[in-house]
Amino acid sequence: MTERIREFLRRRREDGPCLVVDLDIVRENYQTFAHALPDTRVFYAVKANPAPEVLSLLASLGSCFDTASVAEIEMALAAGATPDRVSFGNTIKKERDIARAYALGVRMFAVDCKAEVEKVARVAPGARVYCRFLYDCAGAEWPLSRKFGCDTGMAVDVLEHAHRLGLEAYGVSFHVGSQQRNVRSWDRALKSAGQIFRECAERGIALSMVNMGGGFPTKYLKKVPVVENYGRAIFRALCKHFGNAIPETIIEPGRGMVGNAGVIEAEVVLVSTKSAQDELRWVYLDIGKFGGLAETMDEAIRYPIRTPRDGDAVSDCVLAGPTCDSADVMYEKNPYPLPVSLEIGDKLLIEGTGAYTSTYSAVAFNGFAPLKTYHI
Amino acid sequence: MTERIREFLRRRREDGPCLVVDLDIVRENYQTFAHALPDTRVFYAVKANPAPEVLSLLASLGSCFDTASVAEIEMALAAGATPDRVSFGNTIKKERDIARAYALGVRMFAVDCKAEVEKVARVAPGARVYCRFLYDCAGAEWPLSRKFGCDTGMAVDVLEHAHRLGLEAYGVSFHVGSQQRNVRSWDRALKSAGQIFRECAERGIALSMVNMGGGFPTKYLKKVPVVENYGRAIFRALCKHFGNAIPETIIEPGRGMVGNAGVIEAEVVLVSTKSAQDELRWVYLDIGKFGGLAETMDEAIRYPIRTPRDGDAVSDCVLAGPTCDSADVMYEKNPYPLPVSLEIGDKLLIEGTGAYTSTYSAVAFNGFAPLKTYHI
Repeated sequence: MTERIREFLRRRREDGPCLVVDLDIVRENYQTFAHALPDTRVFYAVKANPAPEVLSLLASLGSCFDTASVAEIEMALAAGATPDRVSFGNTIKKERDIARAYALGVRMFAVDCKAEVEKVARVAPGARVYCRFLYDCAGAEWPLSRKFGCDTGMAVDVLEHAHRLGLEAYGVSFHVGSQQRNVRSWDRALKSAGQIFRECAERGIALSMVNMGGGFPTKYLKKVPVVENYGRAIFRALCKHFGNAIPETIIEPGRGMVGNAGVIEAEVVLVSTKSAQDELRWVYLDIGKFGGLAETMDEAIRYPIRTPRDGDAVSDCVLAGPTCDSADVMYEKNPYPLPVSLEIGDKLLIEGTGAYTSTYSAVAFNGFAPLKTYHI
Repeated sequence: MTERIREFLRRRREDGPCLVVDLDIVRENYQTFAHALPDTRVFYAVKANPAPEVLSLLASLGSCFDTASVAEIEMALAAGATPDRVSFGNTIKKERDIARAYALGVRMFAVDCKAEVEKVARVAPGARVYCRFLYDCAGAEWPLSRKFGCDTGMAVDVLEHAHRLGLEAYGVSFHVGSQQRNVRSWDRALKSAGQIFRECAERGIALSMVNMGGGFPTKYLKKVPVVENYGRAIFRALCKHFGNAIPETIIEPGRGMVGNAGVIEAEVVLVSTKSAQDELRWVYLDIGKFGGLAETMDEAIRYPIRTPRDGDAVSDCVLAGPTCDSADVMYEKNPYPLPVSLEIGDKLLIEGTGAYTSTYSAVAFNGFAPLKTYHI
C-alpha cells in the first residue's frame, strides 16, 4: 500500500471494486531484478498484468517480454518493444499464430514436443526454439501441474529434432512453480539444464540459453526472501552446474514484477451468520472469484486484507464474492480473521493484487462488469 | 447437437472457438417445464445464459426471470419482461442496487438474514421478500456450498423481521444443488418449507410462495431423469407436506433450460506426451477453463465430446486449455478417452455447453478473446 494509491482512492468517486497499480513499485521491482541478476535478461510475463501502462514502462526500462498469444505480442510491440525483445513463450500454439508472430518479427519460440517443433519449422524457418522440461515444484505455494514441459530425455530429442529441421536449438526452460519461497529450488532445475546441455553437445548441438522462468514471489501474508537472495542462489547454482561455460540466462517474472504494486478496493456487501447460534460470520464482498480473485481457488493465494477497523478484536470469517454462484467463496477451509466490528459498507483493501487479477476477471458473469483498473 | 447447429458450423468462416445455441431447443425446454409443472411459474435463471436472443424468446413465451444483479434486471426488462415478472434472487445485494431495482419496478427480493431484510425495508418499502434456507445437496453433481441461505429456525425469524418492518413476508426458497439427478431431493426440502410455513403461521404470518430453485439437470454423459418425472415427484411432495393448502410455486431452471441447447466448437492445438515412454496423451484445445469451460473446475462437469474420428480406437487423454496457466487443465484426475487417431487441427464439438460458459469466460486472460457466441 503506497501513499499514491491511498490518495487516489481517497479522490475516487466511482462505484464498484477497483484495482489500483502504482507504477513506481513496478519500476522498483524491475530495477531490483536487473540488479540482483545483472547478467540475466528480464522477460516480463505479460499475462500477469498486460496493462499498456505497465508494458510501456517496462519497455522504456529495457525489459523484454514473455508472451502467451499473438494479442500479447501485439501489446508488447505497441508498448515500444522491438520484436527481438519478445519471446512467444507458450508451448501450445496454433500454427497460424506462429506464422503471425514470425511475420511480426518474433524469432524465439517455446516448445515441449516434436509436433510443436514441426509447426515452428514450417512457418518460422530458422527461428530459435527452447525446450521446456518438467520440474517438480516442491516448495512453491502454487505448484504447477504437468501441463508444460517434457522429461529431460525427451527434451534432448526435441532439440535435436529442431536442429535437424533447420531451427536454432537455442536452449531450455523450466519453471520452479509460482510463488516459490525456497531460493534453492533453482539449483536442482539448473542441474537438469546442465545435463541437457551436455547431452545435446554430445550430439553436436551447442545450446546457449537457459530460461529460468518465473516463480519469484510477491509478499502476501508469509515472509518471502528478498530478490537479492534469489540472485545469489541462482548465480551459485549456475557456477556449480555450468562451470566456466555459464550460458545466457533469462528470467520471466510476472507476479514478482507487479504483484505487490497493486491494491484492490472492495466493499462489504453483507455480514451474516447461518444460524442464530453460529459464531462464524460470512462476509460478502463486491468482488470474488469471478471478478478478479480467481487465484483464491483452492485457497492457494491468501491476500493481506486491511479494513478501516484494524486493531479491533477479530474473529474468523468465511469470505465470499457477490455472485449467485455457490463456488464463489474465497476463504472457507481456512477462515479469515477480520474485525468483529466490521460493517456493511466498509471498504477493504486487498493487497498484493497487481498480478493475475484484471484479466482473470469474467467478462460479465451474473451481470457484473469486469474489474476496473487504474495504473497510476 | 442439432442439424441447425451443424449447418451453421459448416458455413462459419471465422477463426477460434465458439458457442452456438439452438433457440428451438430452448423453446422446447421451456414448454417441457411449463407442461411438467403446470401450476408453477418459471423464473429463468438469467446467469446461466443472458444472451438477448435467449431472454427475448423466453419473455415471449411467458417466462419470468430470476436475476443476480441490476444489469441482469435491465437485460430482462430490455428483452420484454415486465418488472412484475422479475425476481432479484441474489441474497447479497448492495442497498443502492436494491433501490435501483425498486425504481425499475421490481418488487420481489431474496434474503437470508435480518441485515438484508433491513436494506430492503429501507429502500424498497412494501416489497415481497422470500427467505432462502439451507439445504444439503446430497445427490447433486455440483453440490452447493453453504454460501446462500440460513437454517430453518433463523428463516422464521428473518421472515418475522420482514413482516414487522412492513415488508410482505412472501415465502421461502431453497436449492437442491445443481445438476440434481435424484427426483426425490425436493421432497425433503419441501418438508422443511412446510415447517417454516407452519411456524410463521403460528406467529400470525401467512406465507404464500415456495421458490423451489433450480437444479434440473442437463444431459452430459450420465443419464438424467426426464423433466416429467421431476414434475410428478415435486407435485407428490407438495401434496404430502402442504395437504390442501398447496402454495404458489416457482422454479428457477438455468442449466435445465439452456444447457443442452448449446455446443462449443473447439480446435485441437497440440497432441503430445510428456516422455517417449508415456502412454498418456495430452490434448490441448483452443478453449479451456478460462475461455468458458470454468465448470470443469474440480472436474465437476464432464461434457460429452464429439470428434471427426469417433468410432476409431480410443485411449485416455488429459484435456487442457491453451493458456500459459498451469491450472488450465480440464480433465486429468479422470482422463478422457479420445480417438488415438486424433490430430492437430481437428475440430471437436463439446456438447451441453449452453449454460455457464459464455459469461464465465475471462475478459482477456493471456490475451485470448472471450468466447464468441451465436444464438440461432
